[in-house]
Amino acid sequence: MKKLINDKNNIIEEMIQGILKTNKSVKRVDNFNVIYDTKYDKNKVALISGGGSGHEPAHMGFVGQGMLSAAVAGEVFTSPTPDQVEAAINHLNSNAGTLLIIKNYTGDKLNFEIAAQLASANNKQVETVLVDDDVAVENSTWTIGRRGIAGTIYVHKIAGAMAQKGASLSEVKRVAEKVIENVRTFGISLNSIYIPTTGKKSFELDENTIEFGLGIHGEPGIKREAIKSSKLIVQEMLDLILKDYNYQNSEVALMINGLGGTPEMELFIVANDAHNYLKEKNVNVYTSNVGNFMTSLEMQGISISLLKLDDELKELLMEPTEVKSWK
Amino acid sequence: MKKLINDKNNIIEEMIQGILKTNKSVKRVDNFNVIYDTKYDKNKVALISGGGSGHEPAHMGFVGQGMLSAAVAGEVFTSPTPDQVEAAINHLNSNAGTLLIIKNYTGDKLNFEIAAQLASANNKQVETVLVDDDVAVENSTWTIGRRGIAGTIYVHKIAGAMAQKGASLSEVKRVAEKVIENVRTFGISLNSIYIPTTGKKSFELDENTIEFGLGIHGEPGIKREAIKSSKLIVQEMLDLILKDYNYQNSEVALMINGLGGTPEMELFIVANDAHNYLKEKNVNVYTSNVGNFMTSLEMQGISISLLKLDDELKELLMEPTEVKSWK
Repeated sequence: MKKLINDKNNIIEEMIQGILKTNKSVKRVDNFNVIYDTKYDKNKVALISGGGSGHEPAHMGFVGQGMLSAAVAGEVFTSPTPDQVEAAINHLNSNAGTLLIIKNYTGDKLNFEIAAQLASANNKQVETVLVDDDVAVENSTWTIGRRGIAGTIYVHKIAGAMAQKGASLSEVKRVAEKVIENVRTFGISLNSIYIPTTGKKSFELDENTIEFGLGIHGEPGIKREAIKSSKLIVQEMLDLILKDYNYQNSEVALMINGLGGTPEMELFIVANDAHNYLKEKNVNVYTSNVGNFMTSLEMQGISISLLKLDDELKELLMEPTEVKSWK
Repeated sequence: MKKLINDKNNIIEEMIQGILKTNKSVKRVDNFNVIYDTKYDKNKVALISGGGSGHEPAHMGFVGQGMLSAAVAGEVFTSPTPDQVEAAINHLNSNAGTLLIIKNYTGDKLNFEIAAQLASANNKQVETVLVDDDVAVENSTWTIGRRGIAGTIYVHKIAGAMAQKGASLSEVKRVAEKVIENVRTFGISLNSIYIPTTGKKSFELDENTIEFGLGIHGEPGIKREAIKSSKLIVQEMLDLILKDYNYQNSEVALMINGLGGTPEMELFIVANDAHNYLKEKNVNVYTSNVGNFMTSLEMQGISISLLKLDDELKELLMEPTEVKSWK
């Protein structure tokens, strides 16, 4: 295993110190693994997300005006503990209430919900939404129900724009849930990754094989097969998404998400194939987002997300944000 | 070799089509591998850069208000031909003149300079600057003199801000040259890459070895050694930069550039180590840029750039830009 790290037990601490030294628009909550937007306004709904680390820029890279108010980082591929999430809620101490955006993994769900209960007992108004956009598998190693993956970033963006406008907690939660209802994602991987804390590969894939439907921690997908052209891979991915949800004759946002080790050149080739195939299928792409949004360490692979848009979602999605990881 | 591509002879065409479908702020010049900023103003200096492909977001990702007016893409790791560069100059047809920002590789230098001569013969006012920020090697496989690498992005940003203000060609060229004089870069790699057109690896590196001072096409560096901690690697890289140019007691911009396959988590650990070591060496980091700016396909590795700042460079560097790959 070759990684640019120092102490495998101190990875998250050093990453956070690096973020703080290079991004002046965020600060840390005491010694917690929590960063928050220095411009955060207490009279607006606080939006908090987080989860295991190793998925950067998710979630700390999305803290800033127009997206998240704070993000909580667990250890690599490990849910943050409830006290960390609670520290985020208490520090922001919103007068308008707090919305927790949770990816559907058993640990995240449990720990974020405990934090919500603890904060509620302490007279904080806290609501939660659960993102489960991955159409690949129904249950998985780490989930009951579908996994939450890159579609979560659309929830950050759209709920973030709504909170920024000064909307109420119930209104922010309503649009977050509208995104969750209308977003679907499917991912594939070309290689496996080394988990820095164990020094071991997450799984083995031979020289010509790719994995369909895998999760962002290297959890198994639905099948393995020989590498084929981008066009055929994209068609198969989109067919699975379109089978799950009817996007025909709708306007959509399209996200081509790199899993960390995919050259940008390939993301644009994939984007071209996805645009062409969606056109054939009468799905109208209103806007596209291409880049690394939710990664899995150095994994080479992609996920594709589709979000069905109405006028409200379109407007919120296109609102400016100061977050630099949003592209 | 596993890549998300279709036809290895059509990679650049499909990448450009993907860029055009997903970025509404750029357009293409006829059938050339040239894209330009749709908001480009003919009465301002035109800034054009480019080079071989495989380094994305460099350079097409930096086209937009406040940075490049146009970018020209060659085949993978291959200089664009003079007619491509000339097409960019002619299409923009600036009334204020054109500055070509060239990375110092024999092919790029030759082809961009021929284009400049052709355009000059055609009554266009064209100037060039040559970026040679890599302190690793004096001459190399593909260069006479030092190579141009990630420091080039600081030239794009600062000359771009100057052009945006409506400065004259000589003024834009002057600040571009000031950046080139004051920027130094050093890179290392943890792995080799597959060249999509040949299906072959660019070089071989064993399981525990890293290469110091390599180029962005996998050209050899100065030595290979066993992987060590991020802190020690960063110190060695910075020592080589600080030996080449005196940054002590100065304010600098620090760029931690991922080479395409490096997890963002590691970029921030490296950024933390770089900040700590520069503080020890009395180099004052005024601002930092962390992300993938100039890559080498899926290479895991980093480069570190330092740029000495004065008041003029500071102001231009911090000007807003609409370019989303600038972070």
